Amino acid sequence: MRSSEFLITTHKETPADAEIISHRLMLRAGLIRKLSSGLYTWMPLGLKVLRKVERVVREEMDAAGALELAMSMVQPAELWQESGRWEQYGPELLRIQDRHNRDFCLGPTHEEVITDIVRNEISSYKQLPLNLYQIQNKVRDEIRPRFGIMRAREFLMKDAYSFHSDQASLEDTYQIMHRAYSTIFERLGLDFRPVMADSGSIGGNTSHEFHVLADSGEDAIAFSDSSDYAANIERAETLDQSDQRPQASIALGKTPTPGVKTIADLCAALNIQAQHTVKTLIVEAAEGGLVALVLRGDHELNTIKAEKHPLVASPLRMATEEEATSACGAGFGSIGPVGLSIAIVADYAAAACADFYCGANSPEEHYEGANWDRDISSYERADLRSVVTGDPSPDGQGTLQIRRGIEVGHIFQLGTKYSEAMNAKVLDENGRNVTISMGCYGIGVSRIVASAIEQNHDERGIIWPGAMAPFQLAIVPLNMHKSAAVAEAAEALHAQCLEQGIEVLMDDRNERPGVKFADMELLGIPHRVVIGDRSLAEGEVEYQGRRDSEAQRVALADALNFVTRQLAQEA
Amino acid sequence: MRSSEFLITTHKETPADAEIISHRLMLRAGLIRKLSSGLYTWMPLGLKVLRKVERVVREEMDAAGALELAMSMVQPAELWQESGRWEQYGPELLRIQDRHNRDFCLGPTHEEVITDIVRNEISSYKQLPLNLYQIQNKVRDEIRPRFGIMRAREFLMKDAYSFHSDQASLEDTYQIMHRAYSTIFERLGLDFRPVMADSGSIGGNTSHEFHVLADSGEDAIAFSDSSDYAANIERAETLDQSDQRPQASIALGKTPTPGVKTIADLCAALNIQAQHTVKTLIVEAAEGGLVALVLRGDHELNTIKAEKHPLVASPLRMATEEEATSACGAGFGSIGPVGLSIAIVADYAAAACADFYCGANSPEEHYEGANWDRDISSYERADLRSVVTGDPSPDGQGTLQIRRGIEVGHIFQLGTKYSEAMNAKVLDENGRNVTISMGCYGIGVSRIVASAIEQNHDERGIIWPGAMAPFQLAIVPLNMHKSAAVAEAAEALHAQCLEQGIEVLMDDRNERPGVKFADMELLGIPHRVVIGDRSLAEGEVEYQGRRDSEAQRVALADALNFVTRQLAQEA
Repeated sequence: MRSSEFLITTHKETPADAEIISHRLMLRAGLIRKLSSGLYTWMPLGLKVLRKVERVVREEMDAAGALELAMSMVQPAELWQESGRWEQYGPELLRIQDRHNRDFCLGPTHEEVITDIVRNEISSYKQLPLNLYQIQNKVRDEIRPRFGIMRAREFLMKDAYSFHSDQASLEDTYQIMHRAYSTIFERLGLDFRPVMADSGSIGGNTSHEFHVLADSGEDAIAFSDSSDYAANIERAETLDQSDQRPQASIALGKTPTPGVKTIADLCAALNIQAQHTVKTLIVEAAEGGLVALVLRGDHELNTIKAEKHPLVASPLRMATEEEATSACGAGFGSIGPVGLSIAIVADYAAAACADFYCGANSPEEHYEGANWDRDISSYERADLRSVVTGDPSPDGQGTLQIRRGIEVGHIFQLGTKYSEAMNAKVLDENGRNVTISMGCYGIGVSRIVASAIEQNHDERGIIWPGAMAPFQLAIVPLNMHKSAAVAEAAEALHAQCLEQGIEVLMDDRNERPGVKFADMELLGIPHRVVIGDRSLAEGEVEYQGRRDSEAQRVALADALNFVTRQLAQEA
Repeated sequence: MRSSEFLITTHKETPADAEIISHRLMLRAGLIRKLSSGLYTWMPLGLKVLRKVERVVREEMDAAGALELAMSMVQPAELWQESGRWEQYGPELLRIQDRHNRDFCLGPTHEEVITDIVRNEISSYKQLPLNLYQIQNKVRDEIRPRFGIMRAREFLMKDAYSFHSDQASLEDTYQIMHRAYSTIFERLGLDFRPVMADSGSIGGNTSHEFHVLADSGEDAIAFSDSSDYAANIERAETLDQSDQRPQASIALGKTPTPGVKTIADLCAALNIQAQHTVKTLIVEAAEGGLVALVLRGDHELNTIKAEKHPLVASPLRMATEEEATSACGAGFGSIGPVGLSIAIVADYAAAACADFYCGANSPEEHYEGANWDRDISSYERADLRSVVTGDPSPDGQGTLQIRRGIEVGHIFQLGTKYSEAMNAKVLDENGRNVTISMGCYGIGVSRIVASAIEQNHDERGIIWPGAMAPFQLAIVPLNMHKSAAVAEAAEALHAQCLEQGIEVLMDDRNERPGVKFADMELLGIPHRVVIGDRSLAEGEVEYQGRRDSEAQRVALADALNFVTRQLAQEA
């Protein structure tokens, strides 16, 4: 492909309203153009990348035995009313009316439609399992679209839905999808983690998210440095290590702490470290009244975990200072577990502390040398906090690292949430009606493109993983319009590359070398051959990989073979 | 692919609400399923066909130098307001509001969006011509969706838009697209005609429709039996043949015609043929008053042509009988051109008649032996009727045939309709701002699938053209689950076919032979190999092409080669 016959629309300026690097680079490289808030056009260059991702996804879904179909984007309200989601779903569901004032929506997801198809077409367990998918533009009316295609209102998604006559079959397909997703992200050359996740509002019990690791990611992920363990930080478990608690070695004593309100104040006042302190939070109890949650001074409460504890009211409600003072004898900043008359739940890490500092339940005083059991006889231990770097991995292997990730895939075991509501049943081996079990499996196809850029870029632009590059090779002829030798060599190499099936972009624009170099680097094309009179005089061209710091000379006669070898190494 | 791992959902019954054969067969074969009025799911089998069509379209668009991009389906109202179409477009344009009550629509077409992109990205004639396309689901809120995917509310379309700094460049690209479209429909194995068309409401001057010929087509097409000439019947021209008019040979005379009201009455009463009569229609004149339109008795007025005549008011309005009687001296059924005092426009064919019969402008009387010039001195000749079979082709080559067609493609020279309204300009060679000229080029990708079935089917089901078949070959093993020999031979042939890249469906379902045969014929798979114990005992299998009336024996050892040769012949 010649750039004169393609559409290259790069910008030097960084767009003002683009907050993250992928958004900036996609605009600057001309991969996308904004049409309206959260609505984008994929320009020819960007679409080449998107199609490559789409193809890998399709190939691996097919290889995993899933069958592709295509459902309409416009969906009738009746099915959503049947599942109950017409009412439950917020304004992200774009509801529309046709010319006859009948209600429809633009599908953000297709559980209802696919369940309707399957209940009509499938009647016997013999026709199951069945895994159906589509790759389609979806619409979600985000309240605040941002980050370009990372959180757009219309986006390309692969959504798959599997159907089973029993849980064991669902679990089999779930594992197959887990492996297929891993293969997809591996083939795309991305550094990713499959992460245990809360299943959120779609329902069901077991789910994994697939995250591309990148500093700009919206989610924090904890993963082991020695095993496959990875979990959303909200879900990663901390371990009960109270068996490693040191013996109490000093006596309980009070120390005056005038003006101390926070753990930071306390550490500064007494010149101690936060991990030797505990903090006590007073929240509403499940049965009414209050309960005290105790965490190590350097740890944060995980609301989701706290709400799951049977003693704690859900949703979590912090006590007012008045309520706390009335129950504990002191206000915020001076409360501690010693001598409390309300129930106490200590986070595992807090419960593993000995000789610690805590509020004394009287104003402007703290205890030092406090110890569980010796000084506080009644308390429960629980996992109440989010994990932090260095925590032991819950699977017992290694310690946890924390990185940020961008969610690009999500797999769920839905169970019977939709099939129950929509009466989707099959006859089992014994001729009895059983409700179909379902799984669902999504990939944010367009989002993958942005996440790849977040993970792979430098100050000069995008660095595409080989499998996603819009072109594999850039040929940059210098002064092509003046030098017949350069033009001849470039045209010949271009023709040879096309013949070999190499995806090549020859920059035949009449632009200065600096402009061409900058553009090809901004576009992130992995391999580049520069053809100029100077090297050509010695029968050579210059090759440079996008991540290489320097160019190297290659004989013109060997250029095609050299490039072919580079591409083979990459694959 | 094994049918046990695929989703085959055929029906024996003809669906009650399906009016045309393609709709019935698509439902019976399980290619599509209805979700709601005008909304369909493409099941895995149907999607395979759709994707094949899509691929041919994409390959030929790419080969023609067009660049693919992807615009969002949801479009902001502002752009449609700018072009004026927000108000002009009827309720087919599905207008929606987002959560902030901002107006959007679901794109039935993308002229506004693409013009907006081009005016932002393109500034110089050097960047033109540019031809951009996408393949995307479109939404049109049809008042009466029918015929399955033939006239659906959501459908897959290829829409392309070209941009030019002058008319000559637009015409070049228009010709390139004309050829690309012809190649696409040839590759798909369809009997089609490119047809001159009125450009309708999209605007612009020159346009061609591409029609797949089929008896169920909604449009009538006239085409020459000896040349490429083809036109929508509304637009096909009739020729002025008054130079071939015979001499007047009999005198003008009146004959009584009691009770005669119609041409049929007249022919019956006088025992004459309709082509020897003329009929006279009284319509409103452009300047007020009335004008008489004269046609041969066996011809029909073409309203569109009449409205283009300068003497005739547009839109056409027929005179009331009272108006006609007052102007002509007699009511409907007795009016004729002889002695009329209002202006007369004679259709070319009527004007080529001699010694004809016509109303005498007095009740219950007709003239016989009427002749132009001799008896009617003042009249104009014009093309006022639709062509009929046997008319000379307007290009002077051969005579016209009339067939029905299904419109599957449409190309337009839009000119500056959108670029003018939206201020899309470039600098020309002389540094002056010129308004961009545009073309647009659509293909109804999903509609092609239905039209192929309308053209290719028999009483047993679909007969796919090779390029569109979901599978090229069906292997039908008989009693596979009981006969080890059959299973072994079928599995081996299946594996060989896959290795050769043949798209094969092996029907390994535990069904009776009759069920399998009927299904494979209904699905329209072009080639079939039946493997059963009886022929296998003689080392043979049975091959039958979908259009063959009988099967033929082929040696099992030669089966793969035989099938490969059949496929090669087809391509």
